[in-house]
Amino acid sequence: MIVVRAAKVGDGHMLMQTTRELGASHGWGEDMTTQAVDFERDLFCANPIIGAALAFSNEKFAGSALWHRSYATSRGQEVMYLEDLVVLPEFRRLGVAEALLRLVAKTAVSKGYKKIFWLVRDWNIGAQKLYQNIGAEIENGNCYCSLHDDALLEFAK
Amino acid sequence: MIVVRAAKVGDGHMLMQTTRELGASHGWGEDMTTQAVDFERDLFCANPIIGAALAFSNEKFAGSALWHRSYATSRGQEVMYLEDLVVLPEFRRLGVAEALLRLVAKTAVSKGYKKIFWLVRDWNIGAQKLYQNIGAEIENGNCYCSLHDDALLEFAK
Repeated sequence: MIVVRAAKVGDGHMLMQTTRELGASHGWGEDMTTQAVDFERDLFCANPIIGAALAFSNEKFAGSALWHRSYATSRGQEVMYLEDLVVLPEFRRLGVAEALLRLVAKTAVSKGYKKIFWLVRDWNIGAQKLYQNIGAEIENGNCYCSLHDDALLEFAK
Repeated sequence: MIVVRAAKVGDGHMLMQTTRELGASHGWGEDMTTQAVDFERDLFCANPIIGAALAFSNEKFAGSALWHRSYATSRGQEVMYLEDLVVLPEFRRLGVAEALLRLVAKTAVSKGYKKIFWLVRDWNIGAQKLYQNIGAEIENGNCYCSLHDDALLEFAK
């Protein structure tokens, strides 16, 4: 049995568990500097820009979704960006991802957002099938660009 | 001569000009519902999540960049997402894009953000070269997923 709910104060340590899982699969290694207090601070401040949903399978923490407020220039409106969707390995193929996505979608609708967007790697066909099944459109052929840390400081001089 | 500056009240009509240009190149057509008042409202509210930079070539409006606050789970920190970078056709190859990117980078640094990220289509080699020249990393093979409007409402039921 899968239960999903919005994040509440004290969930930071569980969000760290999924973030570590994500970091391991992405090879972030020691580049990952996040701590549980970061989530506690940023989820529960005044005017937060992030939100999170947690899933439990038979009361065990099974996965999480973390989204942030985003903006669609084509609409002149806020929309929602899904930053992370993580299911812990021992809880895969149980419907956890879809349950999390549905709660994120309900949250978006309740906030008046008309769109959620996110990225997926092109080799991740399993995830893409799930996204298509829930009604998402998928556009191939995008590159993710980032300018960060020393390179950002250098260019900003 | 290229001059760049942060958006100020009353710039909404110029941002509409670049948004229309972007919409034309992306084939948004009548899906584009943005109006100048949307930018005025969302740029200059309390706690805005978006920001914009405008470029002028010999005092003529030449292009704009629009960014929004974003979040890096790997850092537990806000970062910056560059939503749009548009140079009007008659002002291309003059350094407008790089000048806008530099102002965005300076803005990021001044706000304490350690990363800017954005997307580019994989066929847009010219833009990718510019981004590499300024120190950006580019990762191929991403898909852009979106769940919106009726499909979002349907899934959120």
